[in-house]
Amino acid sequence: MKFEVLQNSPGLARIGRVTLASGVSFNTPMFMPVATQASVKALGLDDLDDAKASMLLANTYHLYLRPGLETIRAAGGLHSFMNWKGGILTDSGGFQVMSLSHLAKVEEGGVTFRSHIDGSAHKFTPENVIEAQMILGSDAITCLDVCTAYPVARDQAREALELTLRWASRSVGSWKLEVGRASEQNLHSLLPTSSFQPPTLFGILQGGFEEDLRREAVERMAEMGFEAFAYGGLSVGEPKELTWEMTSLISSTLNFQLPTPNFPRYLMGVGDPLDFWEAVRCGVDLMDCVLPTRNARNGQALTSQGKFYVKNNAFRRDFSPLDPDCTCMTCRNYTRAYLAHLYHAEELLLYRLLSLHNIAFMIRLAGRIQEAIREDRFETAYREFKEQYALKEEHKSATV
Amino acid sequence: MKFEVLQNSPGLARIGRVTLASGVSFNTPMFMPVATQASVKALGLDDLDDAKASMLLANTYHLYLRPGLETIRAAGGLHSFMNWKGGILTDSGGFQVMSLSHLAKVEEGGVTFRSHIDGSAHKFTPENVIEAQMILGSDAITCLDVCTAYPVARDQAREALELTLRWASRSVGSWKLEVGRASEQNLHSLLPTSSFQPPTLFGILQGGFEEDLRREAVERMAEMGFEAFAYGGLSVGEPKELTWEMTSLISSTLNFQLPTPNFPRYLMGVGDPLDFWEAVRCGVDLMDCVLPTRNARNGQALTSQGKFYVKNNAFRRDFSPLDPDCTCMTCRNYTRAYLAHLYHAEELLLYRLLSLHNIAFMIRLAGRIQEAIREDRFETAYREFKEQYALKEEHKSATV
Repeated sequence: MKFEVLQNSPGLARIGRVTLASGVSFNTPMFMPVATQASVKALGLDDLDDAKASMLLANTYHLYLRPGLETIRAAGGLHSFMNWKGGILTDSGGFQVMSLSHLAKVEEGGVTFRSHIDGSAHKFTPENVIEAQMILGSDAITCLDVCTAYPVARDQAREALELTLRWASRSVGSWKLEVGRASEQNLHSLLPTSSFQPPTLFGILQGGFEEDLRREAVERMAEMGFEAFAYGGLSVGEPKELTWEMTSLISSTLNFQLPTPNFPRYLMGVGDPLDFWEAVRCGVDLMDCVLPTRNARNGQALTSQGKFYVKNNAFRRDFSPLDPDCTCMTCRNYTRAYLAHLYHAEELLLYRLLSLHNIAFMIRLAGRIQEAIREDRFETAYREFKEQYALKEEHKSATV
Repeated sequence: MKFEVLQNSPGLARIGRVTLASGVSFNTPMFMPVATQASVKALGLDDLDDAKASMLLANTYHLYLRPGLETIRAAGGLHSFMNWKGGILTDSGGFQVMSLSHLAKVEEGGVTFRSHIDGSAHKFTPENVIEAQMILGSDAITCLDVCTAYPVARDQAREALELTLRWASRSVGSWKLEVGRASEQNLHSLLPTSSFQPPTLFGILQGGFEEDLRREAVERMAEMGFEAFAYGGLSVGEPKELTWEMTSLISSTLNFQLPTPNFPRYLMGVGDPLDFWEAVRCGVDLMDCVLPTRNARNGQALTSQGKFYVKNNAFRRDFSPLDPDCTCMTCRNYTRAYLAHLYHAEELLLYRLLSLHNIAFMIRLAGRIQEAIREDRFETAYREFKEQYALKEEHKSATV
């Protein structure tokens, strides 16, 4: 993927443009729905189109275990397996190994773990997760890293950073090797369509909550030649102010250290509507989060007027659309009363309708944020959003 | 709804045409997907369009309990509540009262029962289920009846038939009253769009498995002036041959008793692909069944080559569509390997994709059956279908 900054704001917020090898392009800041197991939960390709999704995040750990890399290789890559025409960013699997698998053990060579599905033994190394993501055929891939929790002792943050940096260096080596191999195969291919473009490799910035370690992480990753950066080790339980303090610090340091602004910045796992504004304010271009789809499965809708639970009694005979400001398939076709009924009747359709709406909401929000930056009124627009959002939050608590 | 027979076959099978008050029309034999709780499980309106569904069956019992008639009245009827432009046939609720509710008690006046949701006490009478279905605004409605099981003693079948007939007579009275009331309201309405067309009232034929009682049921219902007939008390556990014997007997008696063939015939709760052919052969025009959607939720696909479980190991790296003969959204966009993955990964999307495909399959099958009648080769077409269907059934058992 190519990335260029189209417009800077007085602060750290900026508008960028991503162009994928497939020709698909979109502006940032952008929200990426999560397709953990090669499926954005409850949504079809038509739904993702309706929500105007451009790029998905998929999880290497999950896909490696199921359906397995050989199946996806046989399908011709993850795009083809899912029949998805947009972009795909994959994580390294490191985070899931720590949070989902059993007996994960971090060593210099990599991480050994047991599958959460069948207990089978596996090892992720900086090299093999790059190889795995090349098989997946992602547009953007990420390095294996060591993520720390909150709070974390300085020594431990330092140690995790050092190992992450050594792994990053090995990742670059593996990436170059794989890219070389793929390019060579491509030279020998007679198919004109197989013009190979290497995936963008995201380095992951660690350093806990130590300002100097975070600065050092940026500096040393930049020296290694990374041209794309993921902000790791954030949103791990720390207070929100600390998240944004660190995010701003990283972005400012990147601005200072990098030869050009045209390197994308990705904050992993953040995607609450208000967090989205904050992250952009702190210089982030790309975000992903399971929240819009997970909340949907709990019956919660994100709207311009705040979060609603569709089980809300006031909805039972409300024949207006879920969000009057929304034009998604759900809001075009169904009423609040009908959604409330689907909730109470435990109908599967609800998961699809709310997930689609919530994803559409996040992506429309991305457009709104871009517009605010374009018109040089980010802070005003953010304040307006917050006021409208908070207003109905109060209304909601009054009527539930 | 209006119904006319377009073409008879040498046997009992026939092609008919249904035209709804809304202007929607379709040919029969036709399969109607089941929207138990105002939702065909896991499917949106777009999916029903893709599958070319024309008419749905909805359950009065379920809708009466949840969301409740007043909510649907406030929505302007069930079509409007669901935003469904096609036809709706509703059952009387009697069958669900017997099978789902607690402490159901049949008396001369009606059936008292307790809700399966909250245990609350309710009573269905021949009159109030007509009223309920008028509130739902169905295109076709049904009488409250007493359904017997298999086997059933002759005395009991006689008793159930007699009560069903007395209730049918009361239902006609209630229907006339409601239609008169609605027409009068309509006269006073200034809205040109509100031209009221009364729903078609289906009488339900009972009589157990006694030939003479079945003949008597037809005769006495015809005398009451019914112009639409549902075949009740079948598929209740009896051997298949007996089902078709009774179905043929009823159709033949209807042919003999009625002044015109232009009265629709509906076999309730039947919808296995082979049963569909048999039912049509026995003179049935309309069928509904939860099987295509229920089986979908168990991972089973109906195809021209037999039933498949998508968990089938042979599917894991099969990148062809589920059914090569199908053009539904699922078969246009997804492979067997991807569907198998969704099954193993327990992804919600699978329910939608398989339900859509199975409904599309049944409706395409309806078209194929119509074509066979049109071309006067019903028996040959049925044999060809069976051979292709059974062939892969064997193949399936070999590869699972």
